[in-house]
Amino acid sequence: AGDSIAGRTVMVKCQSCHGKDGVGRAMLVGGEAPNIAGQKYDYLVHSLMAYKAGERKSPMMSLAVKKLSDEDIANVAAYYAAIKITVEPPPP
Amino acid sequence: AGDSIAGRTVMVKCQSCHGKDGVGRAMLVGGEAPNIAGQKYDYLVHSLMAYKAGERKSPMMSLAVKKLSDEDIANVAAYYAAIKITVEPPPP
Repeated sequence: AGDSIAGRTVMVKCQSCHGKDGVGRAMLVGGEAPNIAGQKYDYLVHSLMAYKAGERKSPMMSLAVKKLSDEDIANVAAYYAAIKITVEPPPP
Repeated sequence: AGDSIAGRTVMVKCQSCHGKDGVGRAMLVGGEAPNIAGQKYDYLVHSLMAYKAGERKSPMMSLAVKKLSDEDIANVAAYYAAIKITVEPPPP
């Protein structure tokens, strides 16, 4: 299931683009990283594993995942999934 | 840039999985759709165009984008990007 506390040490590698809080920042390569705060755990794991397997490609992420073990992926996914977000309901 | 008001009519096709509010729901095919509330506009457009081009694959999304024009994609991305989210800072 992933250990969100252990994921904090993995997060250090992600935070320059995704923030400690999971809010995407402007990247040196241009564009903004997506928000991942409070994202579904399974979706985060699936995305990271897809980058690792080369099924999904991105100049930044394809490189970033090379340093991550499957356990790192589970733990950092748990870290970002655990961040609480509140969504303002759209107008009716 | 996309018209978030026009995007409301596109959102109707997305809401059974992603919600009117962009919070991912449990899907009939299993698993949960990701949250897209307040996601970066450029990232949403990039993701939808990647599904449309077949560069990114998903049983649900590869089908869902077939019904969407490039204008629909810009507009629905603007709709979901415009939803306000608040992120609770993680513990120090």
